[in-house]
Amino acid sequence: MEKLQTLIKEEAIVISDQVIVMDTFLNHQVDPAFMMELGEQFASRFKEHHITKVITIESSGITVAFATALVLGVPLVFARRKKTLVGDTEMLVERVPSFTKGMVTDIMVSKQLLSETDQVLFIDDIIANGDAARGLIKIIERAGATLVGAGIVVEKAFQSGGAYLRESGIQVESLVKIASLTDGEVQFSS
Amino acid sequence: MEKLQTLIKEEAIVISDQVIVMDTFLNHQVDPAFMMELGEQFASRFKEHHITKVITIESSGITVAFATALVLGVPLVFARRKKTLVGDTEMLVERVPSFTKGMVTDIMVSKQLLSETDQVLFIDDIIANGDAARGLIKIIERAGATLVGAGIVVEKAFQSGGAYLRESGIQVESLVKIASLTDGEVQFSS
Repeated sequence: MEKLQTLIKEEAIVISDQVIVMDTFLNHQVDPAFMMELGEQFASRFKEHHITKVITIESSGITVAFATALVLGVPLVFARRKKTLVGDTEMLVERVPSFTKGMVTDIMVSKQLLSETDQVLFIDDIIANGDAARGLIKIIERAGATLVGAGIVVEKAFQSGGAYLRESGIQVESLVKIASLTDGEVQFSS
Repeated sequence: MEKLQTLIKEEAIVISDQVIVMDTFLNHQVDPAFMMELGEQFASRFKEHHITKVITIESSGITVAFATALVLGVPLVFARRKKTLVGDTEMLVERVPSFTKGMVTDIMVSKQLLSETDQVLFIDDIIANGDAARGLIKIIERAGATLVGAGIVVEKAFQSGGAYLRESGIQVESLVKIASLTDGEVQFSS
């Protein structure tokens, strides 16, 4: 994904050696046509699976997850991060820390939206420590559904999330891997 | 939008005379192809405007706003609801109450994403009291951009948000209007 690397080089802001802001093209504004290209990439990389649902966690992964689900012709589920007025007994809930927000949140998926026959593709914009991903994977397991893989737009490869998922035997497809953000400079790895 | 009314009749859960849950087709899971139909509706209803950006507020409006932006061929901006690690001086912020969440949140848009030449279409899944919409409209005004209209999937017409926007001279296009939720029953208005 050369275009994605170019956008990161030209538009992303490196805040520290841990944090990169990609507001103009990923986390706050997106070009829908470009998101469709990313969705086609994910659909192609997981095409041997019989995916029945795409799942993401609100909110900045929703655009690319929607694009992927549109290409695959399957529903998109977005896990919620807060309690709503619905009774908890209808929800599968996992508590996870959030690296970027510096707080703990509950992520939740309604029981009626995942079943034992579901083959689920997890899509997200960024993976860092993978805490939210781990929580979501527990929810998928608790529902009895099958996780067929994880498609990530930008993997911060210097943090442990991607490696953890791969070591767990999950097929992880990252469109771009960032090896380091040292000295305000983005270094990619292949 | 007969299909939308059917989905509401068959799948929505009326929690009280104020609250309806549309998790299976709007707020937690979506059918991407159906969202594209809604996006085409909005694109068609605002086609006389030269829209340069679609804007929504995270997170459950993102799918239909993305679909609309994809049809229109313009960027999608999603306003954020929480402080991130980026400095506030780069952000236009408005504090708004949230009816469904029972709390106050800050909504924010990066200054670099809205300019005086922008013709902005606001898209959201639901309008109730319109507090978030009012906050977002203030942000659009502060950026010097022009709001060309508001496209809403489900308007809770027994609450004041839609009427407020129309009285402010804004073109509001709601695909479905709910007149009342009394006695657990959804009544539509035309």
